[in-house]
Amino acid sequence: MTTEATTRAVLWLAQFENALADGNSAVATAMFLPDGYWRDLVAFTWNIKTSEGAADIRAMLDAVLARVKPGTFRIQGEASEDNGVTSAWFTFETAVARGKGHLRLRGGKAWTLFTTMRELKGHEERQGWTRDEGVVHGALKGGRQTWLERRQESEASVGITDQPFCLVIGGGQGGIGLGARLKQIGVPSLIVDANKRAGDAWRNRYKSLCLHDPVWYDHLPYLPFPDHWPVYTPKDKMGDWLEMYVGIMELNYWAATVCKGASYDEAAGEWTVNVERDGTPLVLRPKHIVLATGMSGVPEMPRIKGMETFAGQQHHSSAHPGGDAWAGKHCIVVGANNSAHDIAVDLWEHGAASVTMLQRSSTLVGRASTLRKNGDAGLYSQAAVDRGLGVDDADLTVASLPYALWPAAQKPIWDKIRNDDAEFYARLEKAGFKLDFGDDDSGLSLKYHRRGSGYYIDVGGSELVANGQIALRSGVVTTEIKPRAIVLSNGEELPADLIVYATGYGSMSGWAEMLISATVAEKVGICWGLGSNTAKDPGPWEGELRNMWKPTRQDGLWFHGGNLAQSRHYSRYLALQLKARFEGIETPVYGMPVVHHPR
Amino acid sequence: MTTEATTRAVLWLAQFENALADGNSAVATAMFLPDGYWRDLVAFTWNIKTSEGAADIRAMLDAVLARVKPGTFRIQGEASEDNGVTSAWFTFETAVARGKGHLRLRGGKAWTLFTTMRELKGHEERQGWTRDEGVVHGALKGGRQTWLERRQESEASVGITDQPFCLVIGGGQGGIGLGARLKQIGVPSLIVDANKRAGDAWRNRYKSLCLHDPVWYDHLPYLPFPDHWPVYTPKDKMGDWLEMYVGIMELNYWAATVCKGASYDEAAGEWTVNVERDGTPLVLRPKHIVLATGMSGVPEMPRIKGMETFAGQQHHSSAHPGGDAWAGKHCIVVGANNSAHDIAVDLWEHGAASVTMLQRSSTLVGRASTLRKNGDAGLYSQAAVDRGLGVDDADLTVASLPYALWPAAQKPIWDKIRNDDAEFYARLEKAGFKLDFGDDDSGLSLKYHRRGSGYYIDVGGSELVANGQIALRSGVVTTEIKPRAIVLSNGEELPADLIVYATGYGSMSGWAEMLISATVAEKVGICWGLGSNTAKDPGPWEGELRNMWKPTRQDGLWFHGGNLAQSRHYSRYLALQLKARFEGIETPVYGMPVVHHPR
Repeated sequence: MTTEATTRAVLWLAQFENALADGNSAVATAMFLPDGYWRDLVAFTWNIKTSEGAADIRAMLDAVLARVKPGTFRIQGEASEDNGVTSAWFTFETAVARGKGHLRLRGGKAWTLFTTMRELKGHEERQGWTRDEGVVHGALKGGRQTWLERRQESEASVGITDQPFCLVIGGGQGGIGLGARLKQIGVPSLIVDANKRAGDAWRNRYKSLCLHDPVWYDHLPYLPFPDHWPVYTPKDKMGDWLEMYVGIMELNYWAATVCKGASYDEAAGEWTVNVERDGTPLVLRPKHIVLATGMSGVPEMPRIKGMETFAGQQHHSSAHPGGDAWAGKHCIVVGANNSAHDIAVDLWEHGAASVTMLQRSSTLVGRASTLRKNGDAGLYSQAAVDRGLGVDDADLTVASLPYALWPAAQKPIWDKIRNDDAEFYARLEKAGFKLDFGDDDSGLSLKYHRRGSGYYIDVGGSELVANGQIALRSGVVTTEIKPRAIVLSNGEELPADLIVYATGYGSMSGWAEMLISATVAEKVGICWGLGSNTAKDPGPWEGELRNMWKPTRQDGLWFHGGNLAQSRHYSRYLALQLKARFEGIETPVYGMPVVHHPR
Repeated sequence: MTTEATTRAVLWLAQFENALADGNSAVATAMFLPDGYWRDLVAFTWNIKTSEGAADIRAMLDAVLARVKPGTFRIQGEASEDNGVTSAWFTFETAVARGKGHLRLRGGKAWTLFTTMRELKGHEERQGWTRDEGVVHGALKGGRQTWLERRQESEASVGITDQPFCLVIGGGQGGIGLGARLKQIGVPSLIVDANKRAGDAWRNRYKSLCLHDPVWYDHLPYLPFPDHWPVYTPKDKMGDWLEMYVGIMELNYWAATVCKGASYDEAAGEWTVNVERDGTPLVLRPKHIVLATGMSGVPEMPRIKGMETFAGQQHHSSAHPGGDAWAGKHCIVVGANNSAHDIAVDLWEHGAASVTMLQRSSTLVGRASTLRKNGDAGLYSQAAVDRGLGVDDADLTVASLPYALWPAAQKPIWDKIRNDDAEFYARLEKAGFKLDFGDDDSGLSLKYHRRGSGYYIDVGGSELVANGQIALRSGVVTTEIKPRAIVLSNGEELPADLIVYATGYGSMSGWAEMLISATVAEKVGICWGLGSNTAKDPGPWEGELRNMWKPTRQDGLWFHGGNLAQSRHYSRYLALQLKARFEGIETPVYGMPVVHHPR
């Protein structure tokens, strides 16, 4: 039984396919609304690129159509109809790849089109029917190499006698998930990480840390968490999972390996990367390096007068071990975002004499319980599992909406949250806490994508702030640090045995500056942010996150990161881009953005 | 749209439910064919028990009905109709549990009924909607215990200050899978294993070993292998998976722990178990012990005149490391089953001067490729995955057919295999290889269930036997061993540098004899086997495997084992039986078998 909506989508796809087959960009473009969008993940552009409006779409098609040779558009399942919008999933092919896409029609024209590359023809991942046999039946004179011998040989050779095509610097969740994609797709890779064991990036954080996102959002590729996995994974459990994952996925992973510096030979198209593995200097020569060193980049420490005279302990939140040692002590937490709250609560729980939070600027707060309740109806939830919605489909659904349309979609949700939790927010404000919900009131997700900071997912800290158990100072700055106290801009002097700077992180391009050079860092420019022209995300509008998972202005240099869901989803496209280059498939990049913000 | 078959099944279930609710065993029994079967896994009998024929069924109902209080029988999905047999899945409840069952009707009467316990009411596993939160939101003065601290406390206390309710002796696939079930269901348990690391039971085997069953058959509970996992898992990869699994499932697992002896205090209902952990003696006092030391039991070594004079190396197949060291040497493999073939092939591949296989009695051979082809249409295959058939449903489907009906179901399959592979079998016989397909030609699965031995799944060895690359001596026995040769009963003397005794294993009750006492071992009797009155499986007919996963004649002593599929499936019922005892739920066992074979 084909619904009307399905018929409409099928007809649109057929017409679109014909226009593309005829190489007729004009006709294809005319099938979009004038303010329509086409978001492409690698399939058409070898880039992560949203074309916005007819002119952009036309320009893109003119540039790529002859090469891409798209066709075989086929609807997947039935289309749906909601509020005048027809939505449909479809598959398609290009000259070199198979893809999956999503279409939203309004009044018969495309409002949004979303195209993604799923696999390169002839380079499909081996799974299900095509999985490895694991054993060669029959008899092989001379003896066969066992799985163990192959693994040991690989471990002994990669990075020593065999140079990896791709070096992933940073073996946290991002590097590990990407490493698994590269392994499965057949790109020789090596992951290096400074920590002693895989998973230590989580283990080394403050001890009360649990994931702030629920389990349904957090799966890694290939090996989902089992059904009994807790909703909010404790950090050490997460560390153990990652360490296990590295082994099970048979990744080449060098722990205790510090990257000292890297330089690119443009002529040879090769990096020289100096590392110290267990203290021993080694040189690696990959064709590509991926910085997976943490989306949050380099820890940012403020410079405050008298800092060097402080007689207590002071450190960045990323180096904070937990509250055990601070019972009876006076503790200052600088900042009012996630880490600041978690650390302040932990110090209070451990019986600090006082915990004072210094809020520098306004913060978006969302209660975990409220977000969970909203999320329960959504894409990443037990309800979604029960509906049979796979994580991959959830990821594609999120990605199908161009960023430009997110604020309008998010604002009503956050208006409702603010209304529902009005009493909670009023109590927080009464305690002096400065709240915001984004410059345009579009809420958490936008704030995360624009600046990756400025929010707290409340798991209990706000109550302590509201009732004064965590003392709050807001709208003041620290003017001076004395041996046992800090001085605020309002003249107040607070006793201090511990100062934790939960002052956030710089752009990921800071890693490029540290590991490669300031020149390269400035050439590629800052990472993350959409160009929304809101706080900490200067314009002009980019339409996509800067430099993430896509080609940069530096050949052979890539950035990978984000939360677990983003790392899971976008690692697929980064792996495909690297695979194409490994196989010598042509990858002309369409729509390289101008670098507006070198730093 | 309810089919006729479904209507028939629904009506039968409703009538059956009424008869049971009325406590009317006579009416309920009359709803079966006179030669009908009722197989129950724990739900009605607190036993693993097949009642065969009307009299048996009536006796069982008379004994248990008043206590069990069964009801709420509900069909699951649609019934199917095939060859005059109506088949349906259903759920039901008892006073203490929820269950799942299967029904086969012929002419309106039950031919087979299958009932299983799924969960104890009030003791359901926490997963999906009921999973743990992982974190307590809010603020807890005094500090909270983190996941890591809880894990460390548990590791430090279990077996030291806190005695486990259940001690699992043997931490191979069986013990580990059972341990996971016990953990999820909340039975305090400890697994002890003599090997240095979890997984070593696999790693320590001959190096060419891969699982002989394909991946779809081999999943552990809770955490299935990912889609790219090889069809036949190499042994070291399996070892790594098990080691990972122990960590991820948070099992209490003592490696390098040797069990020295155990005795049961009937009055206290408690075991005293002496172990050496890393060489340090410790006493454990569990209420129950599970021997999960390998379904195959204790390695059996023949006693041959002059054995002690042998100047080469001789060892049991379980101690054989692999063929590397034997290039240019004369090798004898005693036996002609799976291990014998694998080891002979491996020696040949590594360039042994000669490899001779001594076949003592006839062997069932099935080619892996043929079994795979047959299996592809079956329950454990990629095709089954594509059909949406879960592993649990596959397990239940297999278990739904009473053992008494297996030979009739299996013989036609093996008749076809023998016909299809006739040329292959003729070549083997021409080389002198003695073939059989079970005493009643019922094939591999029956041979496995009756005696757990006597077969080879051909992955290449038979070709070497057929073409003489592996020399075969059949129908002879070894009469003497000399320093550099063996002498056969036909007078032939073969040079020998290595003798591998692939001579199989004794009953699992051998472990009970070694670890507890001969008295206890004889009280419980031999394990495994159906009482089929065929070779190595003496009668009388038992209808179920002896002593496996169910109460034994020794209070507090249980046996767990089998291949990966059996361990996965039956660990559920063993865990439920232990959970009921842990919670003090009454578990009157119906139908304890008479011990016909003390040893």
